[in-house]
Amino acid sequence: MTSFVQDQWYVAAYAREVGRELFSRTVCGESILLWRTRDGAVTAMSDRCVHRRFPLSEQPSHLAGDTVVCGYHGFTYGADGVCVAVPGQTRVPRTARLRSYPVAEQDSFVWVFIGDPARAEGTRIPRAPWLDRAGWTVVSGMEPLAARSSLLVDNLMDLSHETYLHGGYIGTPEVAATPITTEVDEEAGIIRVSRHMADAECPPFYADSTGITGRITRWQDIEFTPPCLYVLHSRIAPAGVLPNPDGTDPDAFHVEVVYAITPETESSTHDFWAVARDFALDDEAVSEYLAKSNRTVVLQDVTALDALERVIAGEPDGHQELSINIDTGGLAARRMIARMAQR
Amino acid sequence: MTSFVQDQWYVAAYAREVGRELFSRTVCGESILLWRTRDGAVTAMSDRCVHRRFPLSEQPSHLAGDTVVCGYHGFTYGADGVCVAVPGQTRVPRTARLRSYPVAEQDSFVWVFIGDPARAEGTRIPRAPWLDRAGWTVVSGMEPLAARSSLLVDNLMDLSHETYLHGGYIGTPEVAATPITTEVDEEAGIIRVSRHMADAECPPFYADSTGITGRITRWQDIEFTPPCLYVLHSRIAPAGVLPNPDGTDPDAFHVEVVYAITPETESSTHDFWAVARDFALDDEAVSEYLAKSNRTVVLQDVTALDALERVIAGEPDGHQELSINIDTGGLAARRMIARMAQR
Amino acid sequence: MTSFVQDQWYVAAYAREVGRELFSRTVCGESILLWRTRDGAVTAMSDRCVHRRFPLSEQPSHLAGDTVVCGYHGFTYGADGVCVAVPGQTRVPRTARLRSYPVAEQDSFVWVFIGDPARAEGTRIPRAPWLDRAGWTVVSGMEPLAARSSLLVDNLMDLSHETYLHGGYIGTPEVAATPITTEVDEEAGIIRVSRHMADAECPPFYADSTGITGRITRWQDIEFTPPCLYVLHSRIAPAGVLPNPDGTDPDAFHVEVVYAITPETESSTHDFWAVARDFALDDEAVSEYLAKSNRTVVLQDVTALDALERVIAGEPDGHQELSINIDTGGLAARRMIARMAQR
Repeated sequence: MTSFVQDQWYVAAYAREVGRELFSRTVCGESILLWRTRDGAVTAMSDRCVHRRFPLSEQPSHLAGDTVVCGYHGFTYGADGVCVAVPGQTRVPRTARLRSYPVAEQDSFVWVFIGDPARAEGTRIPRAPWLDRAGWTVVSGMEPLAARSSLLVDNLMDLSHETYLHGGYIGTPEVAATPITTEVDEEAGIIRVSRHMADAECPPFYADSTGITGRITRWQDIEFTPPCLYVLHSRIAPAGVLPNPDGTDPDAFHVEVVYAITPETESSTHDFWAVARDFALDDEAVSEYLAKSNRTVVLQDVTALDALERVIAGEPDGHQELSINIDTGGLAARRMIARMAQR
Repeated sequence: MTSFVQDQWYVAAYAREVGRELFSRTVCGESILLWRTRDGAVTAMSDRCVHRRFPLSEQPSHLAGDTVVCGYHGFTYGADGVCVAVPGQTRVPRTARLRSYPVAEQDSFVWVFIGDPARAEGTRIPRAPWLDRAGWTVVSGMEPLAARSSLLVDNLMDLSHETYLHGGYIGTPEVAATPITTEVDEEAGIIRVSRHMADAECPPFYADSTGITGRITRWQDIEFTPPCLYVLHSRIAPAGVLPNPDGTDPDAFHVEVVYAITPETESSTHDFWAVARDFALDDEAVSEYLAKSNRTVVLQDVTALDALERVIAGEPDGHQELSINIDTGGLAARRMIARMAQR
Repeated sequence: MTSFVQDQWYVAAYAREVGRELFSRTVCGESILLWRTRDGAVTAMSDRCVHRRFPLSEQPSHLAGDTVVCGYHGFTYGADGVCVAVPGQTRVPRTARLRSYPVAEQDSFVWVFIGDPARAEGTRIPRAPWLDRAGWTVVSGMEPLAARSSLLVDNLMDLSHETYLHGGYIGTPEVAATPITTEVDEEAGIIRVSRHMADAECPPFYADSTGITGRITRWQDIEFTPPCLYVLHSRIAPAGVLPNPDGTDPDAFHVEVVYAITPETESSTHDFWAVARDFALDDEAVSEYLAKSNRTVVLQDVTALDALERVIAGEPDGHQELSINIDTGGLAARRMIARMAQR
């Protein structure tokens, strides 16, 4: 039995990654072939030929119009995964079809549904609208993580680690020192963790992108939709500047930091990250700076989590962890994911 | 329990590989030390010293006349594997002897017998006489395959893959399109698969070596002697040219493509390949061309089968394959090998 | 259950390796963090933060005065392993403490106690006083061994391998040819193996360091204190020169070759080696020669034992070894270690 949460939409790729070249990505242990038909529709199907399991993403497999031709013996499949030709005979066996995955493009991502396809339509795809909306500028990437996805969830749900692991980038003493509030919305399937710092040092990541020179009011409002979509609503303003009573907030800088956490295998993860901002929209230098800085921060996490994975994989089970207040959000996420996995 | 077919002769090496240097090769999971005595006889024995298992092929182990001296503590063995000297005492324990393997040189190969040595003499060594016969010129090599031997058997028994995996070398559309006939000779232990193309495109492999410029009559007659020797009798002639009624065939070109499929471990294989021809016997350019082209074709298979091995090793058992007409020969080979393994 | 002998002192490092940088070494499968307080005392504690198991030796973890700060979330520990600060709250959980190891500096080594700390004080630390004593000059090093520690014990207890594996360095024909005497002192927990060669060739290792040009009287007296400390008392003198009746021995050269054999994992070992001499005390050239030569010899063993480990790991259990007289000491050591492991 798989330990992955089933019957859920997961991010398989950025929309920009999928085109008229065969592209493969493993999601929750399943190798999925992604490509676009000539009219641009994304398709997702098993990356294993029904004949002898040859990977359809492997050379010399190739697209021929709106079909995929297996590079080993030429089995040919349509965009729906149904086999339309086999070598040496005209009759195609009726059972010759690839597993086809429900697929959707939304918020710059390609989402695939893992589980019973009949449940796809009734299952909500989590939203990250800032990644594909006027008024926002986005930088993004994906880093392969040689660690189980739960370690990334732990990491992102407890931002006090910014002070230590990301000092000099996004961490300042106030992050670790400021208590959090945690809220679990079981019905919506969302966990919220908030940390509002009224008077904090401005880390380089925000100072250099916003131009603020003094101390700031810094809000971190996490919304995590288990098992896979994480959004950090980050608000930065000169110290003391608050939103207007009507909700408008013209004097603050808003950054939406989005992570899609896609398990690849039991011990590896696709770490999709994106940073959307509502300021300096056309400033290429700010985009370059944020892309470079955020990737550096993500790679600091990758290094640390890869090390943790090696520790966990190399040591006996049953290790007793010690948890404190900062872990409230992460523990809530673990519980919600465990319940989802049991369903 | 091993899954390898026991009580069979397997190819361990080309005769040219074994000389007065210690040489080791693993056959069916057994590490075998091969060397020649001063009078040129090939010997095969376990590559593990009886004392502490040190590999006798490992430096500073060495040959001293017709004995092997272990590089760790100096245990010394004769060509029959019997220990003749140990350190620190003059008495040599009677049980100090290496496992010795029945060995034979035939058709340019060194064959070793895996299983009960008493059954070696009564067990036929499969033949590939063209590799060592006047009137034929041979190019050959061995490529290590990081895949189980059954994947190579599947590959070679179904040549329709030439059209897809080896297009531009030996594959043309007619190979995949032409039906096969399959014949299983249980008594002789041979499986035959034939595909006769009456009017086919001439692939570069044959056009460039024979000089034929137009369309061809192309015959592929496979004889596989499980578990390990595969011969493809390949006949190429200008389209419409057939053998004479008396069996002579002066206007055709004959190529004998030989594979010795030797399991190394459960998931790796020695892929010995040889191409013998009855034309352009002294033409070095043709030899170089065929050696280079066939090695390229073999490496295309190696790449594909190594990928398949990773797929199979990484996925749960019980995958359902879909087989069609082209698989008749391969499935017959699997059945015969499975029966041999159970004996 | 671990197979390592518990309740014993093991060498974790040379004293010179441990300072004001965080240093980690795995001993008997346990990852241990070593560092010195500002007043120079060595401390040893678990290299895993109690919070989420982050390795405290991993960047950006660091020393701050006499505390260690975890690089992930800032958990901070004193030299006794007790946690003194956590992020986001002032109360530190009472159970927040790292496992602390009894530690001692002796004979140039840092020793740690593996097992029940309450038994540390009553357990003898084996001695190698020549490594830190006036009148002796020492060269030393450590080589990582990708082989189980028992293979190194076997290796060192039977020096007849010098003739074969170390020919041209420390081996001559007389070593393998001369019988040994073996003595097991169960009460003291020491195994002694002696080989006295009255008239032997002088190997380069001793010829080039002592200046002796002719044949020698060569004594090898091994004292092994299982599970981990091995001393070879090596006496070299011109052939026929014996110690005086009163025990003084002014015309001989004495070399104490010390090995500390520290299991890292079930299949890897820290191979600490040191060579102490009572001659040419200030001669740098002799020191350099002995350091280089002994390291070469150790690496010859490492190469051979790494190969043996691969053999053993790759082959089925239950292999029958063949033992002879030279193995008496090694077999006694195996028995004593097996008994210690069962306690």
